[in-house]
Amino acid sequence: MTKKKRILTGDRPTGKLHLGHYVGSLANRVKLQEKYDSYIIIADVQALTTNFEKPENLSRDMFQIAEDYLAAGIDPEVSTIFVQSKLPEIHELTMYYSMFTSVNVLRHNPTVKSEAQQHGFNDMTYGFLGYPVSQAADISIFKAHLVPVGEDQIPHIELARKIVRRFNDLYKPVLIEPEALIGEVPRLLGLDGKAKMSKSLNNCIFLEDEPADVEAKVKEAVTDPARIRKTDPGHPDICMVYSYHQVFNRNEVKEIEQACRQGEIGCVQCKKKLSGHINNLLEPMRERRIKYKQNPGLVKDILMEGTRKAQGVAQETMQEVREAVGIDYFGENRRR
Amino acid sequence: MTKKKRILTGDRPTGKLHLGHYVGSLANRVKLQEKYDSYIIIADVQALTTNFEKPENLSRDMFQIAEDYLAAGIDPEVSTIFVQSKLPEIHELTMYYSMFTSVNVLRHNPTVKSEAQQHGFNDMTYGFLGYPVSQAADISIFKAHLVPVGEDQIPHIELARKIVRRFNDLYKPVLIEPEALIGEVPRLLGLDGKAKMSKSLNNCIFLEDEPADVEAKVKEAVTDPARIRKTDPGHPDICMVYSYHQVFNRNEVKEIEQACRQGEIGCVQCKKKLSGHINNLLEPMRERRIKYKQNPGLVKDILMEGTRKAQGVAQETMQEVREAVGIDYFGENRRR
Ligand code: SF4
Ligand code: SF4
Repeated sequence: MTKKKRILTGDRPTGKLHLGHYVGSLANRVKLQEKYDSYIIIADVQALTTNFEKPENLSRDMFQIAEDYLAAGIDPEVSTIFVQSKLPEIHELTMYYSMFTSVNVLRHNPTVKSEAQQHGFNDMTYGFLGYPVSQAADISIFKAHLVPVGEDQIPHIELARKIVRRFNDLYKPVLIEPEALIGEVPRLLGLDGKAKMSKSLNNCIFLEDEPADVEAKVKEAVTDPARIRKTDPGHPDICMVYSYHQVFNRNEVKEIEQACRQGEIGCVQCKKKLSGHINNLLEPMRERRIKYKQNPGLVKDILMEGTRKAQGVAQETMQEVREAVGIDYFGENRRR
Repeated sequence: MTKKKRILTGDRPTGKLHLGHYVGSLANRVKLQEKYDSYIIIADVQALTTNFEKPENLSRDMFQIAEDYLAAGIDPEVSTIFVQSKLPEIHELTMYYSMFTSVNVLRHNPTVKSEAQQHGFNDMTYGFLGYPVSQAADISIFKAHLVPVGEDQIPHIELARKIVRRFNDLYKPVLIEPEALIGEVPRLLGLDGKAKMSKSLNNCIFLEDEPADVEAKVKEAVTDPARIRKTDPGHPDICMVYSYHQVFNRNEVKEIEQACRQGEIGCVQCKKKLSGHINNLLEPMRERRIKYKQNPGLVKDILMEGTRKAQGVAQETMQEVREAVGIDYFGENRRR
């Protein structure tokens, strides 16, 4: 049996996960965990780059996201879920990387630029400017071969590759250049059709929502405003419900389009159909979630176990890194 | 008995220490160690900010500087000498600080600016830009009250104070705002009179030099070029030997000045006097050094012991820091 390749994925813990997260990355991770040795980082330190003024939710959000992962089908027996802040080795590696990473390269990174604009940063913090360096450390400390990302994240992976290559050249080739595993990432718009799903806009369905919540939310979704009566011909292309059918009810999509255009289906019925499909998707998640809700210690145990395992890998890599840089003075790395 | 205040001092390990180091800081540290709880950091990671391309000397330089400290009179029973790279907690704290430290503040830091110019950096590295943040972490992770510095380092201490204050305001007042302990730092010019002492210019006397080395080097020192014969009236103000008498032979300084101006002392004799005084200063260092030369394991033991002690302090501070930031999720900090 050949050793599985390793992938690194993860999120900043910023609240409950919703359908947008599921479709955009989580479903893919659940699929990938069979084929790859999966490490999933809960990037709480990185969350502080934009959240340092209100860290009080970090703890709650961290357990929430872990529970969401598990409910969504991440299997703790095969995937390693861990907490970034418990691995100071990542910061240590970030420091070594920062010695040869130029400020200008970071300033001109298109993703950093656009995210800074998004946050309205006139004056970036040092931590925000450097988060791609820290991300390079997240990835390479685990010697991950692949990082599943969307198109917009490619500059980060490119930078991570450059940094790792530079390290290997300068010191000793102990690290692995990661590659982007580019998937088509469907963007799910919010139910209001205005923007992507976002907790703050209250336009999203959470993985944790009950069937009745889902129905109520779908009922409020924006449809073709021209349709008053069931027999009015509709325009599915401007209807959020239709766009959700395209994601959650692929088999019936053509039928629905036709029926809508010909005034053969009412919006109420059409929405019911959609709720049904979404609830079918969420049902197994609800079932898996029960045991974690009943026993919150379980999530903590899984996180602690995954974090311990990740610490072991990170410590091993750092022993090689320190030796490569030449700071293994006491020959006692192993004793740390 | 009241608890002693703590001070943090240290150096980047970049080679043998010379008289300039002794006069500029080491002598003061030897004096201060009785009054204060002294932590002395060998800043090997910081040395990488300018040295990342040639780390191969780090190990040698680290043991060298430690031996020089001990020879110069740093008492390992009262002072704690430790190695920066062995404390990843420092990088962790640096990361938290970097979340609220602005890039512009760092760019406009006068010391960073002038040092970048010195190194000819058009494009700074991320690590170089951030070294004052990392220095703030060095200081505050030990809850040092005082940092002995020269005038040029005041902006760094000011920044460290600001960072600590911001942390305490944002999270919880667990850290101590350090204060600069400003001493008059005599600058010793090189024996060639051209610049400050510098190993690369070969114009300096190392603490490790033998009596004959000292004599030979002083013999080569630049004096008043107008003096050919002993009876020629001299100008001590343009003579390096005289400027060294001012530092190492204060009692005779007036006499020498007069004798020189009146052509009553020859340069050969004057230099012999100086060599004698410098050798008197170095003699006890040579004696202390013997046991470390005979048993190099001793230096290593002292460094490991100091580093372990420093690790203990740093870990304790980080427990409080993590708790303050709110990332003490598992309540298991103490087990790390
Ligand atoms: S019938 Fe369905 S697709 Fe057509 S407008 Fe109504 S909700 Fe949208
Ligand atoms: S006598 Fe002494 S002080 Fe005068 S020029 Fe010679 S070395 Fe310098």
